[in-house]
Amino acid sequence: MEVDFSAIQVIGFDADDTLWVNETYFRDTEEAFAALLEDYETKNKIDQELFRKEIKNLEIYGYGVKGFVLSMVESALEISNNQVSQVTISEILNLGKKMLEQPVELLQGVPEVLRKLKHKYRLIVLTKGDLLDQERKLERSGLSEYFHHVEVLSDKKEENYIHLLNHLQIDVKEFLMIGNSLKSDVLPLLGIGAQAVHVPFHTTWKHEEVSMKENGYNYLKISRLQDILAYLK
Amino acid sequence: MEVDFSAIQVIGFDADDTLWVNETYFRDTEEAFAALLEDYETKNKIDQELFRKEIKNLEIYGYGVKGFVLSMVESALEISNNQVSQVTISEILNLGKKMLEQPVELLQGVPEVLRKLKHKYRLIVLTKGDLLDQERKLERSGLSEYFHHVEVLSDKKEENYIHLLNHLQIDVKEFLMIGNSLKSDVLPLLGIGAQAVHVPFHTTWKHEEVSMKENGYNYLKISRLQDILAYLK
Repeated sequence: MEVDFSAIQVIGFDADDTLWVNETYFRDTEEAFAALLEDYETKNKIDQELFRKEIKNLEIYGYGVKGFVLSMVESALEISNNQVSQVTISEILNLGKKMLEQPVELLQGVPEVLRKLKHKYRLIVLTKGDLLDQERKLERSGLSEYFHHVEVLSDKKEENYIHLLNHLQIDVKEFLMIGNSLKSDVLPLLGIGAQAVHVPFHTTWKHEEVSMKENGYNYLKISRLQDILAYLK
Repeated sequence: MEVDFSAIQVIGFDADDTLWVNETYFRDTEEAFAALLEDYETKNKIDQELFRKEIKNLEIYGYGVKGFVLSMVESALEISNNQVSQVTISEILNLGKKMLEQPVELLQGVPEVLRKLKHKYRLIVLTKGDLLDQERKLERSGLSEYFHHVEVLSDKKEENYIHLLNHLQIDVKEFLMIGNSLKSDVLPLLGIGAQAVHVPFHTTWKHEEVSMKENGYNYLKISRLQDILAYLK
């Protein structure tokens, strides 16, 4: 695959599952949630119901841990037909607090890649989720010094990217986005004429999965973040 | 009181309880919450316990409706000694959804003031709370067209304002903030050398109340937003 990054001046990095581990904590919490409700339903059914609830609530709660916890409480009440114990509700709230207090675990090679790219490019972080939670994770990550700007977006659709690049006065032709989600970090960028690199994370949330069947875009896919250094001299 | 706004180029507006009604919905929800728990405690005690819980959780949840709902659920379990019914928990979640779906009620004179100021000044919105919720409220308010930029901050302390003015390349001497909270919209601005105007809202959350005893700052206090027009020609 041929890609030409010679015009690139600014690089945007997704954060969750691109710079640090995130989805793993959601999966672990879903496991714990299913275990708390094992008297009422099969694990498979609980997973399905929680996912359905999350998607239904996405419009009102948006992305992030707090909306996820509210959806878990609502699902627990529904799955158990209002039989779930008060102690279990309390445990669900604690699962959420644990997620918010989780230490940040950087993905392999991240500081080295940022250190090398920082000299030639303006680096920014573009993430979605709860504002405070994302700011806190960046601070805990020790990576703040590499970034010129951090933006937490309510969503990552074409219009969100257009608005942001406009606000930051970045020419779309000079912008490259790097992230683990085809749906959020790659396709909308290609759609607006910017470039994008896909670095898949081993676990991806169902809601972030897309089929490549209907688009013929050309983008670079790498298996580890360090591989980008071969393309950005 | 003498104020000199001749250097001002950019005006920042707080949103909740400055442009539109907000605190009233929190107060109404607290009333409904206390009514749901009336079998367990007095209204006064319930109010106190919820406030204590909100402040305790502020560091982990931040500002906004979603954290408030999580604190209500946690408080309900504690106040009732885990006796609160599952149906009541469900009703608390619905109180939160109702808040997030509330239509936006503009405060008196807001569109006229913005329309007049827009020609001479760059207007921006600076608010805290849940990102999606605040973006949605601005959209519903019909006020988007008046603003050059909207920023949702995780907090409104001096460091947050310094960082933002720096990012937006606004000179502190040319910046005026207008808002209902002395603690969030006035004092930090005066502290960093910008100017601020206080427009009190009839209800202010206890956490936003400050004593003026320990500071001798000079700022303008007006009783209705329209009054600002006499000072900004």
